Amino acid sequence: MDLHITLEGPGDPDTRVARIYHALREAMLDGRLAGGDRVPATRKLARQLGVARGTVTAAYDRLTAEGFLESRAGSGTYVAASLQAKDGVRRRARRGAVRPLPLWDTEPATTSPRNLRLHDLSIGLPDPALFPLEVWRRLVSGQLRRSRLEEATYGGRGSFRLQAEIARFLGLSRSVVASPDDVLVTAGAQQAIDLVARVLVAPRTLVAMEDPGYFAVRRLLETHRAVVRGVPVDDEGLVVDALPPEARLVYVTPSHQFPTGVPMSMARRTALLRWAVEHDAVIVEDDYDSEYRYAQQPVEPLQSLDRDGRVVYVGTFSKSLLPALRAGFVVPPRSLLPALREAKRVTAWEGDLTTQGALAAFLAEGHHAAHVRRATRVYRERRGLVLDGLAGLGDLLGVVPSVAGLHLCATFRDPSTDDAAVVTRAAARGVRVEGLSHHHRDQPVRPGLAIGFGGIDAEAIPDAMSRLEQAVRLTTQA
Amino acid sequence: MDLHITLEGPGDPDTRVARIYHALREAMLDGRLAGGDRVPATRKLARQLGVARGTVTAAYDRLTAEGFLESRAGSGTYVAASLQAKDGVRRRARRGAVRPLPLWDTEPATTSPRNLRLHDLSIGLPDPALFPLEVWRRLVSGQLRRSRLEEATYGGRGSFRLQAEIARFLGLSRSVVASPDDVLVTAGAQQAIDLVARVLVAPRTLVAMEDPGYFAVRRLLETHRAVVRGVPVDDEGLVVDALPPEARLVYVTPSHQFPTGVPMSMARRTALLRWAVEHDAVIVEDDYDSEYRYAQQPVEPLQSLDRDGRVVYVGTFSKSLLPALRAGFVVPPRSLLPALREAKRVTAWEGDLTTQGALAAFLAEGHHAAHVRRATRVYRERRGLVLDGLAGLGDLLGVVPSVAGLHLCATFRDPSTDDAAVVTRAAARGVRVEGLSHHHRDQPVRPGLAIGFGGIDAEAIPDAMSRLEQAVRLTTQA
Repeated sequence: MDLHITLEGPGDPDTRVARIYHALREAMLDGRLAGGDRVPATRKLARQLGVARGTVTAAYDRLTAEGFLESRAGSGTYVAASLQAKDGVRRRARRGAVRPLPLWDTEPATTSPRNLRLHDLSIGLPDPALFPLEVWRRLVSGQLRRSRLEEATYGGRGSFRLQAEIARFLGLSRSVVASPDDVLVTAGAQQAIDLVARVLVAPRTLVAMEDPGYFAVRRLLETHRAVVRGVPVDDEGLVVDALPPEARLVYVTPSHQFPTGVPMSMARRTALLRWAVEHDAVIVEDDYDSEYRYAQQPVEPLQSLDRDGRVVYVGTFSKSLLPALRAGFVVPPRSLLPALREAKRVTAWEGDLTTQGALAAFLAEGHHAAHVRRATRVYRERRGLVLDGLAGLGDLLGVVPSVAGLHLCATFRDPSTDDAAVVTRAAARGVRVEGLSHHHRDQPVRPGLAIGFGGIDAEAIPDAMSRLEQAVRLTTQA
Repeated sequence: MDLHITLEGPGDPDTRVARIYHALREAMLDGRLAGGDRVPATRKLARQLGVARGTVTAAYDRLTAEGFLESRAGSGTYVAASLQAKDGVRRRARRGAVRPLPLWDTEPATTSPRNLRLHDLSIGLPDPALFPLEVWRRLVSGQLRRSRLEEATYGGRGSFRLQAEIARFLGLSRSVVASPDDVLVTAGAQQAIDLVARVLVAPRTLVAMEDPGYFAVRRLLETHRAVVRGVPVDDEGLVVDALPPEARLVYVTPSHQFPTGVPMSMARRTALLRWAVEHDAVIVEDDYDSEYRYAQQPVEPLQSLDRDGRVVYVGTFSKSLLPALRAGFVVPPRSLLPALREAKRVTAWEGDLTTQGALAAFLAEGHHAAHVRRATRVYRERRGLVLDGLAGLGDLLGVVPSVAGLHLCATFRDPSTDDAAVVTRAAARGVRVEGLSHHHRDQPVRPGLAIGFGGIDAEAIPDAMSRLEQAVRLTTQA
């Protein structure tokens, strides 16, 4: 590592000695150089700085005399061991008085201390233990070859092979209508929705979304200055009749509504498509975890029912791979494709081609299908155990019917139940779970629990559910 | 791969046969199923759909009778080999009438056919052949271990270890003032600048940038509805006196101005910092390729001279790793840090943790420093050969002094020279090179050539420069 020392400005040799002295001293005092670090040899530093070696030696001598440096015979010059870098002395960037735009003036997101929980029933997380990591490692290594990497330069459109594999996968398993050219690869669904917002949301554009709904997307849309309106969800999904007529964009999760899990009925799906045509609106269909299916027949995506090019289909591989591997996609109507490609290009070029290439091979070689098949078996068992546990609470909670995904919901029969109190009591018993009220914004709260089974082993579920039952009964009896 | 077939809606067995028949037939006609593909066994599909096996058999029989399917004894049922999927018959997403916002209505970016050139003197590309790919592959494999991946969940802040390594690297080699907490890791400089724009650019915010300058950033800022004004560049860099007083943001490349390569003088750097304080503006300093240094002393970054917290320091590893590996960072004043973290979180979560973990190890184990040192030697030689070639054109072109980076510039002594004509003539001679006029927007064009040496071997440079000389002489004599 070259140490940054500048001698800019004119000056006689004495000034240069002082500058080198001060640069090194400051680096030691603020912790960039720590006790025991070796400093450059005088000859080397002199050459680097374009000064006589004696200039550097003079600076080193002064630092040695003051106890900052120690010279070890035959081995070089070192920062004195007594100068331990302490976190407190490290340099911090200036605070500054510059303020962000007001729309960013919010409390920072809180992350719960996940590890303190005995049982994790969080939603939206797949089980990383089920992922075929050895296969993935082999495929990634295969991408890190000269021949592959040299294809990858700026301005490209990402891996066309991955687009083709995603089009094939979506066509076969989800009936989505897409050629390889129609697929825009992204670094996850969040980036996909961000690109859609860039291309369609102007300041004060009205966006409708399910309420309860996916809060992170709501926040994302608001940072694009959209006005977001929550629309109620009933046992057929989004209530189409309640959509505000001026909405230009409707964000929905029809296969497995987030967070309730209810699938949108066929009648609502056709009504929503009709509504979009009548109101000149775009539907963003987020099919975030429907690859895990527990019913015999899949739910038909809006995209494949759409005859008018109103549906932007968005998906992610984060639920079938790992959240740490960012991979998602958009299949837009073709009228939006050039703008979305351009938005992707100006913000992220073509993305990470290593992950993209490995994912293409993962799909093409059948690993993805085999993994989803195996994982679905595991999740089906866990889901059954959660349902068993909820059955014991049938007097208090009704299970929301669902057919896919990595979590279940149940709503309290007594609408005055405080689900946040249940969550707190469950946490005290070592169970992390989410309340439905947490996912409401504009609509009256329907209290309930959202119970994920991606992050918990089958053996642990009975104990977790029994602790949860205690928390529920204590709250409802209070 | 499960085939998506839906039997939704009521219906007698005959209707179900028809639905299965049509679903398969459509999949074969539109190319999702191609000649030779195996279709699911009747028993399996019947179970999947929850129908009697005879229902599926009846549908298969009809398709077989019509020549769509072939059954092979003991092996299953296949799509007839005669049904070759043709690209033309594949399904395309609906066109649709939905329009993107007007700001996205531009001609799509053109990508030149890079491979047709004999010599590539493009700018901004490192040489992938110099990258220690075997080391990188080992580090990536090391990240793809269960223990590492299980740490990685949603809502995290990315690899803290990488933040610490970047803070150390920037502190030592660039004198940037940053603790690990001050570093926000991004998927490249483009994402970094995008986050800054989200947090600071409101509609009609005036942004000033160098002209000639980095066009991709200009486009990015315009998609955030900024009004971008180009400010002239002279032989000391950005002309601070020409900054529009209402500019809220100034985007600059002081170490190696893009594209001219001129370093910003110390007088200008202090003037720019003073200007920012006086006008309550923020400076975005893009230090995009200064790790390759050819002078004895580095140029002092604005960030380390800043006493008021006005500078957002942005950088990338795309020039020292590979463009295909997306990794960059922002070091903002602390007043902007929470908003930038939130902007990152809502759009991209924590990014790709595999790349981040591998990069942290690459820095910590000294591979990065060693690689930059070795690559600098190679680039220094190539740079010398380009300068030799330009020396032969000294009557027509003056070299712009620079001390860093992966390209050089030379301006035409005759300001009426048509550099685009030189570029075209060079292309006809198999040399890809860029004209400076291409990088101007608002300011009068100073014609010249930008010559990259990241994508060409030393042996090829004399021939490339001699072809370029022919192109120049032919144009200037015309």
